[in-house]
Amino acid sequence: MMRRSFQVAARLGHHRALLRTPCILPRLDPAAAFGSSTDSLVSRFCPVKTDLKDYALPNASWCPDMLSLYQEFLEKTKSDGWVKLPSFKSNRDHIQGLKLPSGLVAASDKSDWRIFTRCIQVEGQGYEYVIFFHPFKKKSVCLFQPGPYLEGPPGFAHGGSLAAMMDETFSKTAYLAGEGLFTLNLNIRFKNLIPVGSLAVLNVQVEKVEDRKLYMSCITQSRDQETVYAKSSGVFLQWQLEEESSP
Amino acid sequence: MMRRSFQVAARLGHHRALLRTPCILPRLDPAAAFGSSTDSLVSRFCPVKTDLKDYALPNASWCPDMLSLYQEFLEKTKSDGWVKLPSFKSNRDHIQGLKLPSGLVAASDKSDWRIFTRCIQVEGQGYEYVIFFHPFKKKSVCLFQPGPYLEGPPGFAHGGSLAAMMDETFSKTAYLAGEGLFTLNLNIRFKNLIPVGSLAVLNVQVEKVEDRKLYMSCITQSRDQETVYAKSSGVFLQWQLEEESSP
Repeated sequence: MMRRSFQVAARLGHHRALLRTPCILPRLDPAAAFGSSTDSLVSRFCPVKTDLKDYALPNASWCPDMLSLYQEFLEKTKSDGWVKLPSFKSNRDHIQGLKLPSGLVAASDKSDWRIFTRCIQVEGQGYEYVIFFHPFKKKSVCLFQPGPYLEGPPGFAHGGSLAAMMDETFSKTAYLAGEGLFTLNLNIRFKNLIPVGSLAVLNVQVEKVEDRKLYMSCITQSRDQETVYAKSSGVFLQWQLEEESSP
Repeated sequence: MMRRSFQVAARLGHHRALLRTPCILPRLDPAAAFGSSTDSLVSRFCPVKTDLKDYALPNASWCPDMLSLYQEFLEKTKSDGWVKLPSFKSNRDHIQGLKLPSGLVAASDKSDWRIFTRCIQVEGQGYEYVIFFHPFKKKSVCLFQPGPYLEGPPGFAHGGSLAAMMDETFSKTAYLAGEGLFTLNLNIRFKNLIPVGSLAVLNVQVEKVEDRKLYMSCITQSRDQETVYAKSSGVFLQWQLEEESSP
């Protein structure tokens, strides 16, 4: 989710460049350093103490497959280096203490903001998901259970709901693995439909980092890996936010 | 939305094939005909009389840009061949009278289904959009205003919400222009962020139809076309549903 805030910087930086001279990449500060370690990024992203509600926790709507795989990965956080990522209501909660570049805060009189993948708060009706990240392997696993408000064809998840889930999982992984902030490209090949209420498992991997871009892949399958729902790739641009200075 | 129901057929057809022999395309019936004219598809898709609520109508949350462009296109429906597409709560409403292939109806005890892009029913908070289609030109224009529940970076729409809007607009166009039903590929290049509450205009065009595939493109821009938000392409497989037989 933090990556999103960096996208503001990157995209609006690009936006301004675009108004002057059309080009694809934002104009980066050549002096910018990408020195934050994965460990420090993860520590910041997963606060031990917080009053914020974490939506990535089991509830009564989770299907048995989702619950049991969640427990499996929770065990792996104790010994195998996996980290469970918290999921707050808004990215505004995730970027506390980080400074958005000037001009990148959109003016608004609205007060109730929600990150898109937490837009429906009734348990089981919309997005149910939890992401586990492995800092050393630079990979993530997202357990995703679409509810009946995510429908496309009768009884099955909308392709767009899976696209958004992929984008969100890519973005978390890109940020934590290497300050990947700006989504440049998302390419999805759909294979099969995901039944509403069932579990889909997204396996995301950072393939390479080159010229300040992270190249990532994702395969979405049933738990038994018998059914491939979709394959996708994403390219993210690195960007670094600064700490807010003390008032 | 009807295309979604066809995706059930296509994807599950593929699913079954996949369990036997991995392959990308569903196994089509070589005898299948694609004889429905665009006019007859549009007539069926846009019923003159219905009790169903059409969500693609102006409400108090629409920004002035969205309202005025809507009025412009509404004028074009009178003389320039454009058609305003209705948008019901669920695809179940759109496929009345059409037969899903056997085994493609997912069992469920849930009763409140919503198409993903109408998942939030509070005006202005989620998706606000309306699609106009031009049967002769085989193109569509979608007016899209993301609300604060579609947020990604603070104050801006989540990339996944735009991806879903593209997928939905592609699918409508693909179905009405040539019974394109099964999304094979979606490729998006993001350029700039869309501010929450503002208007983004999606221009979708069928580029070619070849080997039972529709190749489509989309450019998403601000109304004045000064800012490109994203460019995308989609490939859809043709599939035809049959009429339900009388009981």
